Formats: sequence, C-alpha cells, structure tokens
Amino acid sequence: MLKAIQNLGSSTTTTTRTTTGFVASFYRLKPPHATTTSAFVSISSSLLSYYSPRTRPTKPLLFLTRKTLSLEPVRAHSTRSESKMDDTSSSSSVAVQSSGSVRKINFCQWCGGQTKHDIPDGEEKMRAICTVCGKITYQNPKMVVGCLIEHDNKVLLCKRNIQPSFGLWTLPAGYLEIGESAAEGAIRETWEEAHAEVEVVSPFAHLDIPLIGQTYIIFLAKLRKPHFSPGPESLECQLFSLDDIPFDSLAFSSMAVTLKLYIEDVKAGSRKFHYGTINKRPGTSPSDTHGYTLVNHLQS
Amino acid sequence: MLKAIQNLGSSTTTTTRTTTGFVASFYRLKPPHATTTSAFVSISSSLLSYYSPRTRPTKPLLFLTRKTLSLEPVRAHSTRSESKMDDTSSSSSVAVQSSGSVRKINFCQWCGGQTKHDIPDGEEKMRAICTVCGKITYQNPKMVVGCLIEHDNKVLLCKRNIQPSFGLWTLPAGYLEIGESAAEGAIRETWEEAHAEVEVVSPFAHLDIPLIGQTYIIFLAKLRKPHFSPGPESLECQLFSLDDIPFDSLAFSSMAVTLKLYIEDVKAGSRKFHYGTINKRPGTSPSDTHGYTLVNHLQS
Repeated sequence: MLKAIQNLGSSTTTTTRTTTGFVASFYRLKPPHATTTSAFVSISSSLLSYYSPRTRPTKPLLFLTRKTLSLEPVRAHSTRSESKMDDTSSSSSVAVQSSGSVRKINFCQWCGGQTKHDIPDGEEKMRAICTVCGKITYQNPKMVVGCLIEHDNKVLLCKRNIQPSFGLWTLPAGYLEIGESAAEGAIRETWEEAHAEVEVVSPFAHLDIPLIGQTYIIFLAKLRKPHFSPGPESLECQLFSLDDIPFDSLAFSSMAVTLKLYIEDVKAGSRKFHYGTINKRPGTSPSDTHGYTLVNHLQS
Repeated sequence: MLKAIQNLGSSTTTTTRTTTGFVASFYRLKPPHATTTSAFVSISSSLLSYYSPRTRPTKPLLFLTRKTLSLEPVRAHSTRSESKMDDTSSSSSVAVQSSGSVRKINFCQWCGGQTKHDIPDGEEKMRAICTVCGKITYQNPKMVVGCLIEHDNKVLLCKRNIQPSFGLWTLPAGYLEIGESAAEGAIRETWEEAHAEVEVVSPFAHLDIPLIGQTYIIFLAKLRKPHFSPGPESLECQLFSLDDIPFDSLAFSSMAVTLKLYIEDVKAGSRKFHYGTINKRPGTSPSDTHGYTLVNHLQS
C-alpha cells in the first residue's frame, strides 16, 4: 500500500507522485566538471564521477524528479564510529566508502598497483581498475542496522558519547558487519551501545539516504531483561514516553523519521513496515533533523 | 508479527525459536587455524578472520544457534556480473568484497601503503590498517535489489545469459549502486535485464545471506507499459502463472524463497513484508535452490 509522499521535515523540495507507487529518477547530469547549484538538479562531483556520459544514451529517462543533492564540503574526523550515522561530513576514507568517489581510489588493495578510472567492458559506470592486475574495486551503499525498543509504552534512546552529534539522542544502531544478518547486527549494536539484551519482534523501517550511500534498517524489539546501561559510545540511556521524545535533540534525521513513523503507527493502533528515501536539504549538518524530505514512502 | 522459523528448503538444519521473535547467534569459534566441519559449527577461514579471540570475552552469548557455514573453495570467474547473485563460488576480488576476508587486503587504496591486519583502537574486529597513512579499509555486506512484477496474475522472470546459473530463471535484480535508493536500483536493474519500465508498488522482502555478505531487497512492482524484452544479461523474459513457475530451474535460493513467500501471500489474499535469513547448506552451488534453510522469518 502506498502512502504517497510524506514530508516529515521542513524542506519544501517537491517530488513527483503517482497513484499507486513510484518510478525511478534518472538525473539529467552535466559533465563531471560542470557541477551546478541550480534548484532543479545539483549534484556533488563525487557522485558525478559515477555517471559517465557514455551511460546516458542507453538509459530511459523514466521519470525526472526534482531532487537536490548536497555540495557540502568534507570535514575531517578521526574514527569510524564518528561517521556511523547519516553524516554528510565524514572523513576522507569514509567519504570514499559512503559517497562513492571512485576517483579517490588510487591503488589496488590486492596487488598495490595504480588504478585508472574508466568504464570497464560490459559495464556502464566509472570504476577504479587496477593497471597491473586488472581487478576492479567496487563501492556500494552500506547498511546501518538498529533497534526501536518498546518497553512499558516507552522507547529506549541513547545519548551519544561520540561525534558527530555528540550529546544528542539516537536509537542504538551501527554498521552491519560481514557474516551477520541485519537482525543480528541490530542486536549486537544494541548491546554495544546500551548493554541491553533484546529480542527482535518485527522489521519496522528501511530508509535510504542515497546522498551518503547509507541505508537504515530498523527493527522493533523488546528487552529480554529490564536492564540497560550506557556502553562506551553512549553518555546515558533512557526510556522515553512517546510524548517526551526529545525531537529537538535527536542526533540524525533517520532517527527523527523512524520515531515519527512509529508514533503515527502507535496512534493508528497498527505497526507497519515502512520504506522511504530521505533527501537531506543541501548544507544541513547531520544533527539538523528538520532539513530533509521523506519521499517515496511506501508501507506494507 | 512473528512467523517463527520456516523451512522452505530441504535442509534439515535446525535453529532455536522463541515465542515472539529471535535473538542473536554468537558463534563459539575455534582459533583461525582450527576450522571444523562438525555438524554444530563450521565456518570458513575467511569469516574467522573477522572474529578475533580478543572480542569474545566482552560479548554476551545471548543465544547459540545451530548453524553451519560453507567451507566451499573459491572458483574463479572473470566478471562482476557473474557473481551478482548469491554466489558462494565467486572470483577472488568479489570474495574479498562479499565474504569479508580482511587478510586479502594487502594495500591501502588511498596511498598505496602496505596494510597490517589488526584490531584498531576502540574497535573489536580485525581490520586492514594502512601502515603508512593509518587509514582503515572497511568491508560491509552488499545489497542486491530487484522487482517481483505482477501482471495479469503472472510474474515476470528472466532466463540468465551469464554465469553463474546460466540458462536458469531469476527475478530481475542486481547490486545497488552508490547514489540511488533501493527502489531506484530495482527499477534500473529491471530495465537493464528485462527492458521493462516498472513502478514499485510496495516493499516485499529483505533476505540476508550472511555467508556471502549479501542482502536481497525485493519490491512488488507493476509494468507501466505491457512491454518487455531480454537485455544483454538475459536470454529471454517471460510471464509465468504461479502454477507454472519453474522452481526446478531457478537461478538462486533467494529467488526460490521470494517466490514461495509470494505464492503463500497470494493464496492467503494478503501481501506482507517478509524479513528472513537464508542459510545455505554447506557445499551447495548457487543454482542449488533446495539446499538452504530460511530462519528467523518475520513479517509485517
């Protein structure tokens, strides 16, 4: 069932809606060195490197959505955990991983050979190809997995002890690791950040943030034991009734969207599964939880 | 709502079930050079490198699931598209990306310096750390996105024109790229493989395959125009009524699971959203669509 497009933030960006679903947005891109800040389409140079002019003649422009992407500069951070969430200002290494600037990959991680940046035979996108062994280094979006823990009509939040968004509140969540399922990862992150042993009850939300190459997978969960305490990445952990959730002090827009959808479901008396895309307003910081639009919201 | 554990395949592997959900499985691992093929826990050496003994004392053994992982050797393939699906026998480069053998990362992709394999300060897992610039190369699971297209009580399948599973049937699907949402990626892949313009209607399934570091995200979709034809990666495309789906000629277990869940939903008269983990039976090929167990099946 489609819920069309819902703007939970304050952005005025609009998108095209359809009657029962939505279709893809294929961007009309300028050449890599002709980035634009126009209202219609602005896109970061790191993303532009992914879409070569050679790909466009073969692509159908199924639909063109009014969509703006950030041109925000990169800010340095020292650790991976500082960019665990929807951080548009991550370290250069994480920026390579999350926003996909293939041109930042200079060497082959297997043989150490220099890379060239070209479109491989049989493919359509720019890749980093080793000039010695020929292997290609691919980059793909990452999943962040977490739990929305229900307990006595309250939800568990953690106050962050790390950057970005130090001192702001979040659901326990972090990057999915190789070798674990999304639910296992969400349970692990909840243990690490809140020392809470939880049981996953149902999938709740899948929220893409294409700008930074991240996807949030959030599960509804319950405490196996009524105990929790802050882990090293948290200053404190606390159960909040729905009326008391600190929406002005949330760490990330993904968490604001998740909690607003949850409150809507609770009021409606039915938990659904939500899919959507978070488009951050250009120039907003990770902790600006109002500068975004939720588009293509679908639910099951 | 929990549907507990459902075995859609023929494996006899069992897992622990709970009354309303499930908890994490933390494996009891032997040291990296003492891999085992015992029925209780067998795990590939590439995965073992991720779990250092240093991490175990700090972890709660929340639950121990009977789970077997493959010891199947790696087989060479020449292109990325050959390992687009749940391929346990992928090329060495893709194996690094998909099964997470951090020890195969020998050089820093940013500065070309040699890497060491150690647990960074503040982390718990083995990583590849550059001995020159100090940057860490992280590896995370990848998302495969696709469409289950409903048309006149039939579903659209593509016969693969590439390895693995050449000549076998699949839903149109492929790796999610940086800069696109999961739904946009599923629409793009459907165009590339079936030249079909589709509209996404609702999220349908999230299926993790931890063994190979892949997550399948499948959407229900409908044709915007009643036209389709095979793309370069397909031999043919065809609409199948549910009674005629070629379950003995499907390309991947993920597709078998998706289609069986879909048929169950159609018979029940209600489309749900499904989450679950596919555990492949050790030694099975990608095209062995019976050698798996679906565990931790949840639905919304």
